[in-house]
Amino acid sequence: MTHFKVNEDDLFFILKNQLDYGRLGRLERYRELDEDTLDMTIREAAKFARGVVSPLQEIGEKWGVRFENGRVTCPPEFRRAFGMYGENGWTALSRSPEYGGQGFPRLARVVVNDLMYGACQSFNMAPSLTHGAGHLIEAFAGEDVKERYVPNMYGGRWAGTMCLTEPQAGSNLAALRTTARPENGHYQIKGGKIFISWGDHDLTENIIHLVLARIPGAPEGVKGISLFIVPKFRLNPDGSIGAFNDVTTAGVEKKLGLHASPTAALNFGDNDDCHGWLCGRENQGLAHMFQMMNAARISTGVSGLAIASTAYLNALEYSRNRVQGTDVAGRKKGFVPIIDHPDVRRMLLWMKATVDGLRSLIYTAALWDDLAHESEAEADRKKYSALVEFATPIVKAYGSDMGFRVAETAIQCLGGYGFTREYPLEQYLRDAKILSLYEGTNGIQSMDLMGRKVRMDGGLPFQAFMGEMEAFCAGAKDHPRIGRQAALLSQTSAELKETTLSLANLMAQDPVRWASVTYPMLLCFAETAVTWRLLDLATAADRQAARSSETAFLKAKVIQAAYYADTTLPLTRARLAVCRNPGDELSAMPDEGF
Amino acid sequence: MTHFKVNEDDLFFILKNQLDYGRLGRLERYRELDEDTLDMTIREAAKFARGVVSPLQEIGEKWGVRFENGRVTCPPEFRRAFGMYGENGWTALSRSPEYGGQGFPRLARVVVNDLMYGACQSFNMAPSLTHGAGHLIEAFAGEDVKERYVPNMYGGRWAGTMCLTEPQAGSNLAALRTTARPENGHYQIKGGKIFISWGDHDLTENIIHLVLARIPGAPEGVKGISLFIVPKFRLNPDGSIGAFNDVTTAGVEKKLGLHASPTAALNFGDNDDCHGWLCGRENQGLAHMFQMMNAARISTGVSGLAIASTAYLNALEYSRNRVQGTDVAGRKKGFVPIIDHPDVRRMLLWMKATVDGLRSLIYTAALWDDLAHESEAEADRKKYSALVEFATPIVKAYGSDMGFRVAETAIQCLGGYGFTREYPLEQYLRDAKILSLYEGTNGIQSMDLMGRKVRMDGGLPFQAFMGEMEAFCAGAKDHPRIGRQAALLSQTSAELKETTLSLANLMAQDPVRWASVTYPMLLCFAETAVTWRLLDLATAADRQAARSSETAFLKAKVIQAAYYADTTLPLTRARLAVCRNPGDELSAMPDEGF
Repeated sequence: MTHFKVNEDDLFFILKNQLDYGRLGRLERYRELDEDTLDMTIREAAKFARGVVSPLQEIGEKWGVRFENGRVTCPPEFRRAFGMYGENGWTALSRSPEYGGQGFPRLARVVVNDLMYGACQSFNMAPSLTHGAGHLIEAFAGEDVKERYVPNMYGGRWAGTMCLTEPQAGSNLAALRTTARPENGHYQIKGGKIFISWGDHDLTENIIHLVLARIPGAPEGVKGISLFIVPKFRLNPDGSIGAFNDVTTAGVEKKLGLHASPTAALNFGDNDDCHGWLCGRENQGLAHMFQMMNAARISTGVSGLAIASTAYLNALEYSRNRVQGTDVAGRKKGFVPIIDHPDVRRMLLWMKATVDGLRSLIYTAALWDDLAHESEAEADRKKYSALVEFATPIVKAYGSDMGFRVAETAIQCLGGYGFTREYPLEQYLRDAKILSLYEGTNGIQSMDLMGRKVRMDGGLPFQAFMGEMEAFCAGAKDHPRIGRQAALLSQTSAELKETTLSLANLMAQDPVRWASVTYPMLLCFAETAVTWRLLDLATAADRQAARSSETAFLKAKVIQAAYYADTTLPLTRARLAVCRNPGDELSAMPDEGF
Repeated sequence: MTHFKVNEDDLFFILKNQLDYGRLGRLERYRELDEDTLDMTIREAAKFARGVVSPLQEIGEKWGVRFENGRVTCPPEFRRAFGMYGENGWTALSRSPEYGGQGFPRLARVVVNDLMYGACQSFNMAPSLTHGAGHLIEAFAGEDVKERYVPNMYGGRWAGTMCLTEPQAGSNLAALRTTARPENGHYQIKGGKIFISWGDHDLTENIIHLVLARIPGAPEGVKGISLFIVPKFRLNPDGSIGAFNDVTTAGVEKKLGLHASPTAALNFGDNDDCHGWLCGRENQGLAHMFQMMNAARISTGVSGLAIASTAYLNALEYSRNRVQGTDVAGRKKGFVPIIDHPDVRRMLLWMKATVDGLRSLIYTAALWDDLAHESEAEADRKKYSALVEFATPIVKAYGSDMGFRVAETAIQCLGGYGFTREYPLEQYLRDAKILSLYEGTNGIQSMDLMGRKVRMDGGLPFQAFMGEMEAFCAGAKDHPRIGRQAALLSQTSAELKETTLSLANLMAQDPVRWASVTYPMLLCFAETAVTWRLLDLATAADRQAARSSETAFLKAKVIQAAYYADTTLPLTRARLAVCRNPGDELSAMPDEGF
């Protein structure tokens, strides 16, 4: 039951010492919040994650997804937890109080998700999707619709989903075929959707699907897609639950992981009786959905971080306790705990640095998100919004990759035991694998980063992102502890910039060569950014040590940053050199030669 | 049922065009073999893998491991296949005909395992372990013992295991506690063993365990370990199966993968009635067992290769057939198969090159193994034996790592479908994970490589290995197609040599810093060696093209080599630079700072 582990000191050090998150209280929207309230909220979330969510991991894995007679049933503990999650305000922590939100910063929501996903990824997808669907309605639907749906969703009484994928339209929404035919103030929805996370279940009495579909006569491709609210059960005029809305569950997927999260194939309008209500503007469905997709991409990165974090801490606990072999340097007599073996220690230090650096990057991006929405000056809002745009594909792809990679490395620390179900690591590995695939594969994230984000707004997001790193390097290059590494980061960052600009030119000229290195380039951005955050954390630790004394905790922040920079950036630079001048092998390779 | 895919042309190109394996017929032991016979044998093995072994993958995954009333039961199809496997001569293909082997080259056995592991890893472990156990008896036991056991094992009537691990003695056999007390011409065995692959089952009427134990009064540590033959049922004087030998199954592990392979905890002598017979010399058990362990390490690498190979080919088939999105370069109209998307093509080309290069490296090492045993000149036997010693930890660790990494990458090509059980890839990923853990973790392989193999025999294995690569580079650096890459390999290889020698000095001086880079160094050796084999394959393809014409198949061999070298070696060199001067962070890091 105690699979979930978190080091709250690490979280708070980023929030307080690195980001000074109490300053959010100076923004108009958060004027009633102070740092103590934020601290307390996060500690409460950690308690909820440990006490209520974490036990669901094992319960859900045993129960699996039960699908009989067209209905999915879930463990009763999931039902109870989902209700409490909403009632306690976690579902809509950062949404406006007008429709049942708590009015907390977006950053707080990300921290809470970091805890909840670590405690049980399968479960936490349900309130997270519900939040996203509710937020779409809140943002784009009419007043009466909002009032009928949103508070019930935020409050944990109803759940929500997003329905995009169809068998022939996975990553390519232009091929979408579900239709919405106008009829007496609503639409008749008809079509099949697949891979719908929490698409059916019995956690709540209603499920509100947000569905992409085409209105007859709409333009072809993505410009003819609209967004619809399609409840499983229609609402009566008084808002109570009415007739079944012809949304049927055709099946559920059998999967590598996430065994407690039902991934459903849904049929809308099999009996021509499925009503949907337009959400937002006609043919603007994809643009509207992107609000939810961007948030889901960040959440995917957070989920990877959360798994990496608890996986690392589980491997650490094992390595402290498992006695095996003798010390390679003869520093201790007899058999020693395996944390003394340098190769195990290497894996632990790499995991620790990756988790801390990734967490810092994600929390930083979440802070930017608050500043993008709530800053007073328009120039600030524009800048921080650009930073969030740029960070999103990096957070999604690298967070998901590292969730998997750290889980894999944690298993390696345990030897043969890591392969068994006695330890939670094998499940982390299985659960984490979905993260590089859903919400746009990581390859698609890399095209978004290098194709769209680098070029958008005349290069503003790219310049803003590089500017943040360069400003840090300028200030840190003479730092007594990590000055050398800051200089290395500065060099890497300059090469990253140069390579990115040269690839931007290649894009039109030779799109195949360009696209052959978008994913390696995303890795370069991510490693550079994680190093930046780690070095920044090290300077924060050094400042704190100067104020009090240098504890092991603070010393470790400096050591992990130096280790990560020295062992990672040289490889980043080598990969950048490869990306600067991609070969033509992908074009030259004949299809039948594979 | 058709999960298993293999490209026989790739296998034969390595065997014939690169290694000229028909020349094995010139060795005395194989004088009755010609190339046609070898070819036919391998084609027969492929047929057996497809027809008999491959269906077991799905059957075994559904059946799982059933353990009731102290007995493990397996699917009847496994029982039939195990018998046929032995009867058809696959179990002891390369063993001497004296005790039921087929007298084929060791290389042939590796090729056959490449096919059989790809068809069903869970199953193929059983005959592979049986072969290893039988071979131990054949090599170290007395004549009458051999005759009673070995033909039954090689013939598929009895199975074998190796029993090393105990709860407190995983990687550290010095802590082993199982005892063997001499008594009337046999020994009383007492102790518990865990993680015994195929430790119990009903495939055969008897199971012959090869058990490491201590004789009372033996020296402490690994110098006091002896090897025992411990059958599940004793043999009557006429060789028929007699009384139960007090070997009980305490339990089976629940695991991430290999669901059809029973991993048992065995108790020997719970009722003080477990007889064992010494195999080989007293206190030489570990040295004897190393014969089996070295073979098992190569087999682990082969298993990784086999999974990588079929995973790649499954991803390739999907990528050819899945239509999604438009061409990035506008070369085709409408939606295109995803093999046209450069990021998918990048993954496919990397997988193809990794599989082909790894296969070439492993087959080359297997050829060396034949030359080490069968060459006429002692100098040749010594040289090839040294090459095998050096290659073993590289093959084990890199083969296992790439089995996992290619399975992961293949899943990525499939997007969300890769996460489902509709495709075999999720099982490959789960099954492959054990490979980096068992037969000595990959960290332990790296210590073996950098600590033992680099220094043994005055550096002979290391010098021999580097010499092979250097000789290739000298001959290929002006090659019109891959000369530039051969020069890059030559440069990398020189840096590899220099770094290895400088680390050999560091080992005594600062063992912690030294051990902090053994695993990264193993990766450098592996990537360099795989590049070497790929470039050598490219030259073979180029020669073949000059003789006939350049088919897509031959062209692809040149392209994959260039791609792999250009995108891999720059990162290898960067990692080497890191390894050349390891930091002291692992020592500096306080335990409580993790």
